[in-house]
Amino acid sequence: MLFRQLFDAETSTYTYLLADEATREAALIDPVLEQVERDLKLVSELGLKLVLVLETHVHADHITGAGVLREKTGATVVASGQGAPCVDRKVVHGDVVRLGGLEVKVLETPGHTDDSLSFLCEGRLFTGDALLIRATGRTDFQNGDPGQLYDSITGHLFTLPDETGVYPGHDYAGHAMSTIGEEKRHNPRLAGKSRDAFITFMKNRQIPPPKRLDVAVPANRACGRVVEPPQAQA
Amino acid sequence: MLFRQLFDAETSTYTYLLADEATREAALIDPVLEQVERDLKLVSELGLKLVLVLETHVHADHITGAGVLREKTGATVVASGQGAPCVDRKVVHGDVVRLGGLEVKVLETPGHTDDSLSFLCEGRLFTGDALLIRATGRTDFQNGDPGQLYDSITGHLFTLPDETGVYPGHDYAGHAMSTIGEEKRHNPRLAGKSRDAFITFMKNRQIPPPKRLDVAVPANRACGRVVEPPQAQA
Repeated sequence: MLFRQLFDAETSTYTYLLADEATREAALIDPVLEQVERDLKLVSELGLKLVLVLETHVHADHITGAGVLREKTGATVVASGQGAPCVDRKVVHGDVVRLGGLEVKVLETPGHTDDSLSFLCEGRLFTGDALLIRATGRTDFQNGDPGQLYDSITGHLFTLPDETGVYPGHDYAGHAMSTIGEEKRHNPRLAGKSRDAFITFMKNRQIPPPKRLDVAVPANRACGRVVEPPQAQA
Repeated sequence: MLFRQLFDAETSTYTYLLADEATREAALIDPVLEQVERDLKLVSELGLKLVLVLETHVHADHITGAGVLREKTGATVVASGQGAPCVDRKVVHGDVVRLGGLEVKVLETPGHTDDSLSFLCEGRLFTGDALLIRATGRTDFQNGDPGQLYDSITGHLFTLPDETGVYPGHDYAGHAMSTIGEEKRHNPRLAGKSRDAFITFMKNRQIPPPKRLDVAVPANRACGRVVEPPQAQA
């Protein structure tokens, strides 16, 4: 498998490029609108054909490049049926998405948002904003639910082999990847913490909403077609 | 080999952690002073012992963590003899630095600076600021020389197998790695460009000096002991 990690510094978002080296079919996971030209240039230079865009969830902190990529390449946009109406293929837990000879397994991991998916391919787990490195996604909007997030991580992710690579949707400290074993042992919100302790911690956090929430969520429900923010009420 | 890529967003600097999974001996390549605590925490959480700090060159854009890491762990600081006087082990082209059962091969790749090294370990090439992704290091200070940089890259790096992974000291576009084959084909400064064309391009660039040049270079010659900048002349 050809694999690349890409970063959008403005929003600290990771995008991932996966490809079957034999068939040259490629997928992008969580592309960022402002980076579409960079990503397409890389796909072209590597001699690949973009056939899939996989979205882990409807993002609140950046606008997806999925819709523009679909227009430019004909790629199929894949995501949960619980999220954006604009997607082409709505998947559920246990589905397998084929990328040439590769298999991408879909895991439903709600809790950050109700539509959050993780994707597993060749020992690499793409966790979106469910499991982050030594952290987790927040749970205070978009139908987030800390108890559900705890169950998703402990039930569906921490049951994978310890050596599984963890590739998150964001990192703010300069880490690129982790492993399931590492997060089980060292994630301060989860290691040795009960479900109740996790819920209490998440509910007590006092953090401002994402700066672009009002723009990003409606835009991402349209696969990145930018929608004007609602007028502020007088 | 255990491998991790780490990023300092303030200076867009990549630091690399390599370790022998059997002996747990670890090396950091180009650590950043402000990230020492992050890096030591990761080393500890992974059950590693830091024994080496490898510096690709005397940096002008950030201050190295090498000296502080040496004080805290007893690690040996390895670099070119052409650069910082503070290093413990001065290496030359063709030297092999052992890290447990791993071998790190030293390549002298001057041109960005006169002390620039690249390190090759298990198919991964750490190029410092000699070869960047679709770019190269600048050559306009610290005895930089565009002809020498062209010769270093084409003579010592582009002669490695095409599939060799390229891990640079910086990236400003969100790319994490490349390969020798990719850079031979797609690096706009080098692909199909003559030595003279490269020299002309590099000499005609009009870019401001690094913001922290006056602080970083003297500090890095002391392995990161911060030295006050010289007083501005009246």
